[in-house]
Amino acid sequence: MTTPKAPGAATLDTLDTPCLVLDEPRMAANIDRLKARMARLGVTLRPHLKTPKSIEVALRVMASPQGPATVSTLQEAEQFAQAGVRDILYAVGISASKLDRVLALRARGTDLTVVVDSLAGAQAVAERSRAEGTAIPALIEIDCDGHRAGVRPDQTEPLRAIGRALHEGGAELRGVMTHAGESYNAADVDGIRAMAEQERRAAVDAAEALRAAGLPCPVVSVGSTPTAMYAENLDGVTEVRAGVFVFFDLVMAGLNVCAQQDVALSVLTTVIGHQAEKGWILVDAGWMAMSRDRGTARQAVDQYYGVVCDLAGQPLGDLVLKETNQEQGIITLRPGSKAAPTDLPLGTRLRILPNHACATGAQHDAYQVVRGDSPEVVATWTRFRGW
Amino acid sequence: MTTPKAPGAATLDTLDTPCLVLDEPRMAANIDRLKARMARLGVTLRPHLKTPKSIEVALRVMASPQGPATVSTLQEAEQFAQAGVRDILYAVGISASKLDRVLALRARGTDLTVVVDSLAGAQAVAERSRAEGTAIPALIEIDCDGHRAGVRPDQTEPLRAIGRALHEGGAELRGVMTHAGESYNAADVDGIRAMAEQERRAAVDAAEALRAAGLPCPVVSVGSTPTAMYAENLDGVTEVRAGVFVFFDLVMAGLNVCAQQDVALSVLTTVIGHQAEKGWILVDAGWMAMSRDRGTARQAVDQYYGVVCDLAGQPLGDLVLKETNQEQGIITLRPGSKAAPTDLPLGTRLRILPNHACATGAQHDAYQVVRGDSPEVVATWTRFRGW
Repeated sequence: MTTPKAPGAATLDTLDTPCLVLDEPRMAANIDRLKARMARLGVTLRPHLKTPKSIEVALRVMASPQGPATVSTLQEAEQFAQAGVRDILYAVGISASKLDRVLALRARGTDLTVVVDSLAGAQAVAERSRAEGTAIPALIEIDCDGHRAGVRPDQTEPLRAIGRALHEGGAELRGVMTHAGESYNAADVDGIRAMAEQERRAAVDAAEALRAAGLPCPVVSVGSTPTAMYAENLDGVTEVRAGVFVFFDLVMAGLNVCAQQDVALSVLTTVIGHQAEKGWILVDAGWMAMSRDRGTARQAVDQYYGVVCDLAGQPLGDLVLKETNQEQGIITLRPGSKAAPTDLPLGTRLRILPNHACATGAQHDAYQVVRGDSPEVVATWTRFRGW
Repeated sequence: MTTPKAPGAATLDTLDTPCLVLDEPRMAANIDRLKARMARLGVTLRPHLKTPKSIEVALRVMASPQGPATVSTLQEAEQFAQAGVRDILYAVGISASKLDRVLALRARGTDLTVVVDSLAGAQAVAERSRAEGTAIPALIEIDCDGHRAGVRPDQTEPLRAIGRALHEGGAELRGVMTHAGESYNAADVDGIRAMAEQERRAAVDAAEALRAAGLPCPVVSVGSTPTAMYAENLDGVTEVRAGVFVFFDLVMAGLNVCAQQDVALSVLTTVIGHQAEKGWILVDAGWMAMSRDRGTARQAVDQYYGVVCDLAGQPLGDLVLKETNQEQGIITLRPGSKAAPTDLPLGTRLRILPNHACATGAQHDAYQVVRGDSPEVVATWTRFRGW
């Protein structure tokens, strides 16, 4: 998965553009910071590998080469299992048609856990467990914030009915999980802290409701990058899932979950034209390279399609990637900026920080790995995709 | 590139979801319609292959297996050249660092044309042509609508200076090209017709300005799907470029450039949960499968992340994909709809029409090809990507 580069073989000055650049020291610092937090709070980190989709990054973020890990697709589970990861949570509600692949992975020695949030879903997992003579482990998804899927923690009877359908039906009731997706919309850091407590409370309440009914609930899993970064108390929680913290991005910086200089991912691009009268600088990074994600549009500071940096990764003269076509982007001064125009001749290379690391990463097949302000590419790490 | 399927080998009921489904008869009708228009108007169609990124689709849309064709990346040019396409326009402004790959393609027998819109750009192409002893052909990009790159057609002297830099500098001045990107924002069909005439006029005026100065301008290239579908007169134009017409999408339907039943691309998805109190149906198609493109948000009818159809491709009960997470989508009734809720049990399979065929296609590695309302997958065609 790694293509080691001979020193000097490739640099940010010679790579074909656009491409995805990963600043390894920034990533390492991001990983160390969250690992230290989790250790202080006494919980296991089960990193969400949907963000990196890379074996090399996974090995740097997981506690061990065997895991634990979280994934969002069976393709990720299969790729990571092939690379030796043995403890994987597939954190999206399972459908019966996906159980063949789940069983195949489990038969090859990967402890893959699925997620259900309905009686019908639990019954399907239990039925298949009985039919195969193997207990498929499942977590029950809890809805802590109305964001997405899950049983509300106060719906005690439906929750227990799902638990019993798993536990008594031949599957393995392994616990509960929840995700505070609404933390991305928090107004401020206090809002994120409150959301973290709400997330914890929902998971712990649900676990207690199951246990009070005599059902097992060893795993109490919570997580989102904002709540993981600001949770102050995780009593009763056994593990935290988070993904985007590995790279961070402009949405996270806008939420004050990181600083802009923590963002480890950028898109390398080349100036291909100008519309001088309009103050436009055209580059070869359009939405295909950046993704269509405009997650900062709803934040206090709109970063459009990204913040423009120089080759060393430092923001450049208040420039943003204002508009994108498929393979062309338009860089302008941030609307309202009083900064002087920056002269960027044809051929100038730039790096653009993304709104959303998961979405921008998904547009690329590899990371070009650099270290700090050195232009040297020290490695190329492949990404995978698909389902 | 084609994996022929034994009859019955795969159907829309058995494919892993999410995946990309292509209705071949709809695509064929879309292709036939534009080809007939172009024939009536007496111009060559140079289809833009950035939309399909597939050899199999290219062979169905090009006039011959050798082309002509348009691409938006050198990766596309290389892939199509490898498959035998010999006449390719790379329709994004060239940078000097990309000329190695241009020359390599030309040396292998592909007539690849590049695009410039500045004196510096023309000089770089000319300089490299002289250094290599081979005239690289170039079109001058004309800005017909302020949308993106290009020289305004009334900037006669800059235009001629670029032309001379190419023609007298050792490159080949092959002509002019323009793209009416603003046609996507037209208020109505009359607006598109007016934009088509503006696009034609800009290209023809620029060509005449070059010719009046004694410069060659054999190619006069225009195009966008909306203007290609509504142009009434293409006098002076030699070729039309268009891409998205092959599949069409909800943005084009919103512009009345096609009917919704012309949209040939959809994403197959499975129901994985419900939030009954809120009328939510959760599916396994999130933004990873649909893309983040929300191109209909600015149109009269917002289609959110897509229109929900049954397995036969027919719209279902006024349902839209209202919100997306990475691997989960939330289907609801269209806001304001008076339709009755549709009961879609866990495991139900649906097809979702995309806002933007180029963006949704780019999230997938293959087309699952079906014919009309038959669930049988008759072929799998691979897509490529990258730069």
